[in-house]
Amino acid sequence: MKTLGELAHLVGGTLKGDPQTPIRGINALENARPDELSFLTPKHYSQRKDFRCRAAALVVPPSLEHLDYPLLIVDNPLAIFARIAQLFATPPFLAPGIHTTAHIGENVRLEPGVSVGPLAHIGSGSQIAQGCRIYGGVYLGCDVQIGEGSLIYPRVTILDGCQIGNRVIIHSGTVIGSDGFGFAQDELGRHIKIPQMGTVHIDDDVEIGANCTIDRGAFGKTTIQEGTKIDNMVHIAHNVVVGKHCILVAQVGISGSTRLGHHVIMGGQVGVVDHIEIGNRVRVGAKSGVARSVKDGEDISGIPAVPHKEWLRMCASARRLPHFRDELRQMKERIERLEKALQGSEDD
Amino acid sequence: MKTLGELAHLVGGTLKGDPQTPIRGINALENARPDELSFLTPKHYSQRKDFRCRAAALVVPPSLEHLDYPLLIVDNPLAIFARIAQLFATPPFLAPGIHTTAHIGENVRLEPGVSVGPLAHIGSGSQIAQGCRIYGGVYLGCDVQIGEGSLIYPRVTILDGCQIGNRVIIHSGTVIGSDGFGFAQDELGRHIKIPQMGTVHIDDDVEIGANCTIDRGAFGKTTIQEGTKIDNMVHIAHNVVVGKHCILVAQVGISGSTRLGHHVIMGGQVGVVDHIEIGNRVRVGAKSGVARSVKDGEDISGIPAVPHKEWLRMCASARRLPHFRDELRQMKERIERLEKALQGSEDD
Amino acid sequence: MKTLGELAHLVGGTLKGDPQTPIRGINALENARPDELSFLTPKHYSQRKDFRCRAAALVVPPSLEHLDYPLLIVDNPLAIFARIAQLFATPPFLAPGIHTTAHIGENVRLEPGVSVGPLAHIGSGSQIAQGCRIYGGVYLGCDVQIGEGSLIYPRVTILDGCQIGNRVIIHSGTVIGSDGFGFAQDELGRHIKIPQMGTVHIDDDVEIGANCTIDRGAFGKTTIQEGTKIDNMVHIAHNVVVGKHCILVAQVGISGSTRLGHHVIMGGQVGVVDHIEIGNRVRVGAKSGVARSVKDGEDISGIPAVPHKEWLRMCASARRLPHFRDELRQMKERIERLEKALQGSEDD
Repeated sequence: MKTLGELAHLVGGTLKGDPQTPIRGINALENARPDELSFLTPKHYSQRKDFRCRAAALVVPPSLEHLDYPLLIVDNPLAIFARIAQLFATPPFLAPGIHTTAHIGENVRLEPGVSVGPLAHIGSGSQIAQGCRIYGGVYLGCDVQIGEGSLIYPRVTILDGCQIGNRVIIHSGTVIGSDGFGFAQDELGRHIKIPQMGTVHIDDDVEIGANCTIDRGAFGKTTIQEGTKIDNMVHIAHNVVVGKHCILVAQVGISGSTRLGHHVIMGGQVGVVDHIEIGNRVRVGAKSGVARSVKDGEDISGIPAVPHKEWLRMCASARRLPHFRDELRQMKERIERLEKALQGSEDD
Repeated sequence: MKTLGELAHLVGGTLKGDPQTPIRGINALENARPDELSFLTPKHYSQRKDFRCRAAALVVPPSLEHLDYPLLIVDNPLAIFARIAQLFATPPFLAPGIHTTAHIGENVRLEPGVSVGPLAHIGSGSQIAQGCRIYGGVYLGCDVQIGEGSLIYPRVTILDGCQIGNRVIIHSGTVIGSDGFGFAQDELGRHIKIPQMGTVHIDDDVEIGANCTIDRGAFGKTTIQEGTKIDNMVHIAHNVVVGKHCILVAQVGISGSTRLGHHVIMGGQVGVVDHIEIGNRVRVGAKSGVARSVKDGEDISGIPAVPHKEWLRMCASARRLPHFRDELRQMKERIERLEKALQGSEDD
Repeated sequence: MKTLGELAHLVGGTLKGDPQTPIRGINALENARPDELSFLTPKHYSQRKDFRCRAAALVVPPSLEHLDYPLLIVDNPLAIFARIAQLFATPPFLAPGIHTTAHIGENVRLEPGVSVGPLAHIGSGSQIAQGCRIYGGVYLGCDVQIGEGSLIYPRVTILDGCQIGNRVIIHSGTVIGSDGFGFAQDELGRHIKIPQMGTVHIDDDVEIGANCTIDRGAFGKTTIQEGTKIDNMVHIAHNVVVGKHCILVAQVGISGSTRLGHHVIMGGQVGVVDHIEIGNRVRVGAKSGVARSVKDGEDISGIPAVPHKEWLRMCASARRLPHFRDELRQMKERIERLEKALQGSEDD
């Protein structure tokens, strides 16, 4: 439990209301109870000015400071709300210590405060830093390293030699360190496996969704840099580098050796070819297919992807295509009539 | 073993043939043995009128009642065939009772007739209703509830607090209750996790394929309603509502807070943006990208999706595009000639 | 350790350099150490003629035999390099024998040299041929058969009755033998499950990536033929046949009963409808949607897919679409002026 005053102090906001109000949780506007904090955006407010709620107070931006309700006024309400929510959120239950049904290999180093759930597997030579939570059913191969305070959810698989940073979250079903897809062809068109001898590095504060796959490098490593957040079922091929603070929405696929800059955002189901460079702050519309390198700051969409504004115009024109066809035919007829008429007048 | 007469009685069909014929199974037309039932559709029949088979009898619609073969004549042969097949189908082997290598937490309630396979995990406080089959290697978190007669296949993960209805089938590798993908941005463009505090409700008679992901609500819940069938590798984001009796084919992705009505059908690899409403009985063509709300009963296709018939016309026109280009150039030349000719005649 | 001479002899190449040079591994050009072999393609060489490396020797094609460096000259350098790499690559660690925490069912046959890792599950009646490596956390159902020397990575699920050939590699998280997606509809639009009674056959030398799903046949079987290589998150529906030596890149989905010929190549995120035939040596561009059968040797792309060259022209024209619109308008105006002018001249 916190008081409203404590929270305002913690996040540096302006409080309108009783600082002694107890806050025991957070919730969505319509469900918040009298001891819970909620938040209101100008957009929400404009849609229902007569909003009714029972929340103890609302986190709002300065533009809503006139509301007749207990308020915590801050510049970036969603970010502040997220930070407060983190205070009240608790990770899923995991008993402290190493469960008796977990299998721990030889020469494993588990630092203080590490929890390992039932039926988990930690391969020989692995090192798990303090405060990590390795949930039940996790499979870590040999020589895996995990930094401080990371959360590895049930049934994650991290294969031999992969390195995970601090405060990383990896959701269930995700596979880190599977072989990259690399083959040579012989003279008969048969595929000869190129052994995948590299590894995967996941840097600090990365979050990876459920049922993703991140392949190890052919040589060298596949890298996900600091602060990047990856949704469910995203596929990252061998030797890809994803820069810092990127957002990859669900079902994205990035082909081998492609490099993403920092703060890149990709919508759901985007596909990217191999061996290209995506610049910093590039945004790619959902379902796009990126076939060429992209410069810093560009917004692109489509299959193949073109500048987003051009794609919007292309879509609008495409809907008029059947109409164009009719127009073309009509114009042709008019030209023919003109030609005949002119022929006639010249014949005069 | 059933007799043909028993089956005819059970499904309310008209029997042409010996009701004492023993039926020990069902099979495809070309493989059925003399003690197996098969089925024949008018389409199949029209393709090979000289069909040869050894089946004990065929389930057919009234339009095929003239065939000189033992027949079970019903209005909806495929549905009847499916019902009969269910009589003969047996779920994969699972020894009754709780396997000694399974890990069962505290305060777990297992009703009579529940089976739990080897190396499965059931977290504290979970309740499993009668007749459920929890296969080996399943991971259930804490406070999970599963209704009667549900089948949870090997290596399914259902995380804390999720609720599963009666007669639900969930296939291997699927993750229910992973965190939704919700982040706020701070002033430096770093992503701050919004804790995902909701849950997932799966209603009665839902089937979910292999390696799917269904995220928990940010607040509140993500819901899959009664009778909906989901294929493999489908991603359902936080707070989505999928209505009753929908069909979502493989690799579909539905973004956050979007609501699907009842009897919606989506082809494979469809993507749907967040916060929209898809009406009842909407059908979406494979690979489409749905970017706007859709009214009841509409058929849509394309990226972005438009009415299906319009999309067909757009595709046809698109193939003529390079030709349009030529036509445009030719017409321009003709116009130029006309302009010159007219200039000439006016100069006269 | 091998000598350069031994390797040259083994792969039948021409050696330029000291045959006694010890080779202890392989590596990428920029990272290779003095006891490692690397390779150089003409493309790489043309990009950086002043390449500097420390490798013991380079595998090159005859066109680079003039280089002043120890060389192993062969016709197909990448294939030869892959073969040599396989000599040095070792599969991830797995202790020989059956781990005490593995669960082995009744009547399981494990041939000599089979290793089974911690917390793995092998169902009753399964047969595992010699030299197979069943990693920790693998789940095999009942009556599963696996041929010689296959590698089943941690957390693979292979369900009852599926058959896997020799030297097959299956990566983590993949599910083999989940139910196909087959339903009949009743008069109320409810979906009635058609029990999926078939199985899956994976032939020799197939490799399947991480988090794939391969459904069992409705009746009969789903088949992946010899030498085919499948990337991560690929979905293969019931009763599909994938021919020999195909390449399916990540996130491809193949619908039910479709048949692929031999040496088919599909780019990432391709989708294929059900019940069609894809000929031998067909190549499908990334992200395409294949809606019709395709003849041997065709290259296709697009949604829906058309011949690849036509698709390239369509893409080029599509980018000019907004421009077409302007041109059409301008031409219309010119035609109108012509018509007025001609009207005027005729009025004269």
